[in-house]
Amino acid sequence: QPVELLDHGFVRVVDYMGDDAAVVQAARVSYGKGTKKVSEDAGLIKYLMRHRHSTPFEMCEIKFHVKLPIFVARQWIRHRTANVNEYSARYSILDREFYVPAPDQLGAQAVINRQGRGDVLEGEEAAAVLRLLREDSERAYSHYEELLNQREDGTIIDPARQGLARELARMNLPLNYYTQWYWKVDLQNLLHFLSLRADSHAQYEIRVYAEAMLDIVKRWVPAVYEAFTDYRQGGAHLSRNGL
Amino acid sequence: QPVELLDHGFVRVVDYMGDDAAVVQAARVSYGKGTKKVSEDAGLIKYLMRHRHSTPFEMCEIKFHVKLPIFVARQWIRHRTANVNEYSARYSILDREFYVPAPDQLGAQAVINRQGRGDVLEGEEAAAVLRLLREDSERAYSHYEELLNQREDGTIIDPARQGLARELARMNLPLNYYTQWYWKVDLQNLLHFLSLRADSHAQYEIRVYAEAMLDIVKRWVPAVYEAFTDYRQGGAHLSRNGL
Amino acid sequence: QPVELLDHGFVRVVDYMGDDAAVVQAARVSYGKGTKKVSEDAGLIKYLMRHRHSTPFEMCEIKFHVKLPIFVARQWIRHRTANVNEYSARYSILDREFYVPAPDQLGAQAVINRQGRGDVLEGEEAAAVLRLLREDSERAYSHYEELLNQREDGTIIDPARQGLARELARMNLPLNYYTQWYWKVDLQNLLHFLSLRADSHAQYEIRVYAEAMLDIVKRWVPAVYEAFTDYRQGGAHLSRNGL
Amino acid sequence: QPVELLDHGFVRVVDYMGDDAAVVQAARVSYGKGTKKVSEDAGLIKYLMRHRHSTPFEMCEIKFHVKLPIFVARQWIRHRTANVNEYSARYSILDREFYVPAPDQLGAQAVINRQGRGDVLEGEEAAAVLRLLREDSERAYSHYEELLNQREDGTIIDPARQGLARELARMNLPLNYYTQWYWKVDLQNLLHFLSLRADSHAQYEIRVYAEAMLDIVKRWVPAVYEAFTDYRQGGAHLSRNGL
Ligand SMILES: Cc1cc2nc3c(=O)[nH]c(=O)nc-3n(C[C@H](O)[C@H](O)[C@H](O)COP(=O)(O)OP(=O)(O)OC[C@H]3O[C@@H](n4cnc5c(N)ncnc54)[C@H](O)[C@@H]3O)c2cc1C
Ligand SMILES: Cc1cc2nc3c(=O)[nH]c(=O)nc-3n(C[C@H](O)[C@H](O)[C@H](O)COP(=O)(O)OP(=O)(O)OC[C@H]3O[C@@H](n4cnc5c(N)ncnc54)[C@H](O)[C@@H]3O)c2cc1C
Ligand SMILES: Cc1cc2nc3c(=O)[nH]c(=O)nc-3n(C[C@H](O)[C@H](O)[C@H](O)COP(=O)(O)OP(=O)(O)OC[C@H]3O[C@@H](n4cnc5c(N)ncnc54)[C@H](O)[C@@H]3O)c2cc1C
Ligand SMILES: Cc1cc2nc3c(=O)[nH]c(=O)nc-3n(C[C@H](O)[C@H](O)[C@H](O)COP(=O)(O)OP(=O)(O)OC[C@H]3O[C@@H](n4cnc5c(N)ncnc54)[C@H](O)[C@@H]3O)c2cc1C
Repeated sequence: QPVELLDHGFVRVVDYMGDDAAVVQAARVSYGKGTKKVSEDAGLIKYLMRHRHSTPFEMCEIKFHVKLPIFVARQWIRHRTANVNEYSARYSILDREFYVPAPDQLGAQAVINRQGRGDVLEGEEAAAVLRLLREDSERAYSHYEELLNQREDGTIIDPARQGLARELARMNLPLNYYTQWYWKVDLQNLLHFLSLRADSHAQYEIRVYAEAMLDIVKRWVPAVYEAFTDYRQGGAHLSRNGL
Repeated sequence: QPVELLDHGFVRVVDYMGDDAAVVQAARVSYGKGTKKVSEDAGLIKYLMRHRHSTPFEMCEIKFHVKLPIFVARQWIRHRTANVNEYSARYSILDREFYVPAPDQLGAQAVINRQGRGDVLEGEEAAAVLRLLREDSERAYSHYEELLNQREDGTIIDPARQGLARELARMNLPLNYYTQWYWKVDLQNLLHFLSLRADSHAQYEIRVYAEAMLDIVKRWVPAVYEAFTDYRQGGAHLSRNGL
Repeated sequence: QPVELLDHGFVRVVDYMGDDAAVVQAARVSYGKGTKKVSEDAGLIKYLMRHRHSTPFEMCEIKFHVKLPIFVARQWIRHRTANVNEYSARYSILDREFYVPAPDQLGAQAVINRQGRGDVLEGEEAAAVLRLLREDSERAYSHYEELLNQREDGTIIDPARQGLARELARMNLPLNYYTQWYWKVDLQNLLHFLSLRADSHAQYEIRVYAEAMLDIVKRWVPAVYEAFTDYRQGGAHLSRNGL
Repeated sequence: QPVELLDHGFVRVVDYMGDDAAVVQAARVSYGKGTKKVSEDAGLIKYLMRHRHSTPFEMCEIKFHVKLPIFVARQWIRHRTANVNEYSARYSILDREFYVPAPDQLGAQAVINRQGRGDVLEGEEAAAVLRLLREDSERAYSHYEELLNQREDGTIIDPARQGLARELARMNLPLNYYTQWYWKVDLQNLLHFLSLRADSHAQYEIRVYAEAMLDIVKRWVPAVYEAFTDYRQGGAHLSRNGL
């Protein structure tokens, strides 16, 4: 049941705690005898989100196993309100897996938006780009093995050599190589992550993860998902007006 | 199955996620193919704790429902790495429940340790203290009702009066009144909390909660509990040497 | 230069680091050679706020000394992204200072908004409320001294008695007693605090602190203040539409 | 006054707030009238550290400008209790600067410690490693320019081509390329960072930064530095005993 993403990535739910009812339960602790009036759960959830009473959303927790290119991991890790365990390239040899964009994702540099993509490259330019990315990535892995003096399967290449330490050899791999981690976060901070990363300003390669996770949120906590969607569309409208 | 504490308090596990195996699972993601050598789970857990590789312990999460005196809540809330929803005395009327120490807990001011207790008060002095605490607490609640112009059960006292807002009336209650909250935390930060609050320097009234939670940790994650106990005893020894 | 608030409270800037220029400087590190286009600082600051690129605002830091009633401190401390050192009632004797609302702040319980105040109490009801609050607070302090067997100035009341430990005696004081702390926070989280606590839903007694701090922000980082004000008014408009 | 590190890196203090006296000042707020006994500042600082009363150390703040290889940045960023603004390779073109270890740092894989380095490589093996790292890094930058269709100085290579978006082209660069950021942290969390990263288990390339920062700490807050050093040596002794 992992959701497959990009060419070798995935996101998979390992475990979770709580659901829509847990948000409501926590809110009712706060309101005590005073909440009788907001009788419907979905209404209460919308009320909480609208009034930025965010702590009840922290009462749900979810843990993902994610496989993702390193340059995506670098953006993702900037969200500090989460718990992470990443595969260690100091301890272990990385897999021969790297990301090459699908042809329809080979965007040219956008001219107006300085941090985005414009038209998709085509014809010979696109072909050259893909060839170069693939060749460089393949060569990098061969050289990684050569530096380690060890193959992906752990066998020694040349018994006469010692091999460079793994913590050093990995520095020769490019940023499109895949890493993996466990990432655990509460629902409030997950929504914050999604609002920034399932957004049109986010880079496509992290957005596909965010969208897959938004879909998981929809099935996990449908009432929270709905309140969040309403709220974001409000926000979208807001920024359309140039606020 | 709530653990009852002090005269009206309790701590109760509402939900949890993960256990000893979840810590190990996360550590093995980090170490990848490289962990074969540390083959035993309990050994790996001790290794992680000794080397302060703390992130695998963040992979477990637990949610408590706690009822506690306000002055204890004031100490507890200083631990920021947790998620909290507290009963709101702005929305709702507080219960008529306050803490009075058991006679064997009526410590006099310690002379050497400026923030602790010394000998237990006895005889007439102890009796006077208990009488005064009880009377003041009772009176405070009557006055709370009077200010609200409402009784604990919600009935109006004098229809000719409006009653002071709940958010104001509560300020007349003393710090020994009980509040309650949901408190959710990851295992790493729970251990940090316990190391500070199940400690002999902590005030008795928070220590009883910490000790009850330590006991819950023991049943929840026995291997982590054991590693933590070893580690703390090391620490204790350390400070015995005046480090 | 402390700003005096309520009857005995204050907020005072102890130190700060950075200003509008520090926000811009940090943003320009991110954008590198790519920022030439957004040439004006105030414009860049508005751009950052609108796009929720919040980390440059974390580059400024401010430290306040605050004196505030305990029930206000209880709301305030819920903001976890700050550094705090509070006066310890375990170590030291509290001052005889408590909060009594000004007559025009004696709100009755609001009927519609379950957590707010409605009309101001008047006449005999108001007088009775003020009398009761004042008397109870005075009595509480006398009893606090009696429990401690020590007066505010540290002198012993009855040499034949031991006196209850400070950490216990303080529990008899009501929530309107004053405490004080150093509170240090980055500008981003300060703005978040202010957006929640300088808001009309916040209790009056914390709002006066937030408003005084907003005024300090205005003088400290005028361009950030202006961007924040624009942004909030957008938000206000948003919630007026019932989003 | 930047401290130069590795072949192109540096760490530079941009700004700071507070010093030894600020730690003491905050602690004295907590202890109030009760601190007269600990009269000496350096003694009070040691007392705080030994009793893990860590919040006064959060009252100092420091901001660094750091230039560092990406694989070092990936370790560093795992410390979440800091504020960061990094150079954006989505907005701007990266510089042609990459890290190649000095010959005496070309450690072979350690055999016992699975995540460290052993003997230094020598002779032909060392030469081959250095040649390969340098060539691959050079080639990577040429290909980066080719993908962008732009040179480091911003000039266009081939007007007939569009050039790949910067956010994509960067993924072909290896992890030894340099990035830079502003990194702001409080003293307590800086010490925590240093205790993990100025440690012998840390990778050499991050350790040199940690050691340079430790030296800055020594000049900035000498009393805190001394207390920290005492405390760590205790800890070192502790782990020697296999605790
Ligand atoms: C020698 C060494 C080897 C390592 N090997 C690996 C590895 O193989 N794989 C790997 O993934 N990592 C590895 N790490 C990284 C390590 O797991 C930590 O991520 C890193 O050391 C940062 O430590 P920290 O979490 O204590 O620091 P910070 O993130 O600065 O946190 C300090 C404290 O603040 C609290 N805190 C801050 N943020 C949060 C939050 N969001 N939730 C809960 N509490 C929070 C916690 O109490 C924490 O202890 C290694 C580190 C070292 C030093
Ligand atoms: C009008 C009003 C009414 C309220 N009523 C109630 C009530 O009835 N009951 C009640 O309990 N509270 C109540 N609160 C308090 C409220 O729930 C928040 O605790 C408080 O507003 C602090 O907000 P915050 O969590 O966003 O701030 P901060 O704690 O400063 O956090 C800012 C952001 O940092 C992140 N963060 C910081 N620490 C953590 C952490 N440990 N784990 C995960 N993420 C973290 C989150 O993304 C958070 O949004 C009320 C607040 C207001 C303004
Ligand atoms: C015996 C005892 C006596 C005490 N006396 C006093 C006193 O007199 N006055 C007083 O004010 N307090 C006092 N305290 C409280 C103490 O200062 C701490 O606030 C409390 O113990 C929580 O500890 P913590 O900060 O490590 O926990 P948490 O807040 O859970 O933090 C854990 C770790 O996470 C990181 N972290 C979390 N949030 C932040 C943040 N916002 N910014 C930076 N880092 C963060 C830090 O690395 C921190 O070490 C006392 C505590 C004890 C146990
Ligand atoms: C489209 C886009 C472009 C970006 N471009 C850049 C760029 O060019 N350069 C760059 O450096 N970054 C860039 N970022 C990253 C951005 O600056 C944030 O680091 C990232 O979005 C994480 O957001 P956050 O800090 O709100 O999330 P979290 O770290 O999860 O924090 C959530 C909230 O918790 C609180 N919090 C958590 N940890 C701390 C802490 N240690 N101290 C204080 N408060 C804390 C804060 O209130 C924060 O708002 C970009 C992000 C996006 C979405």
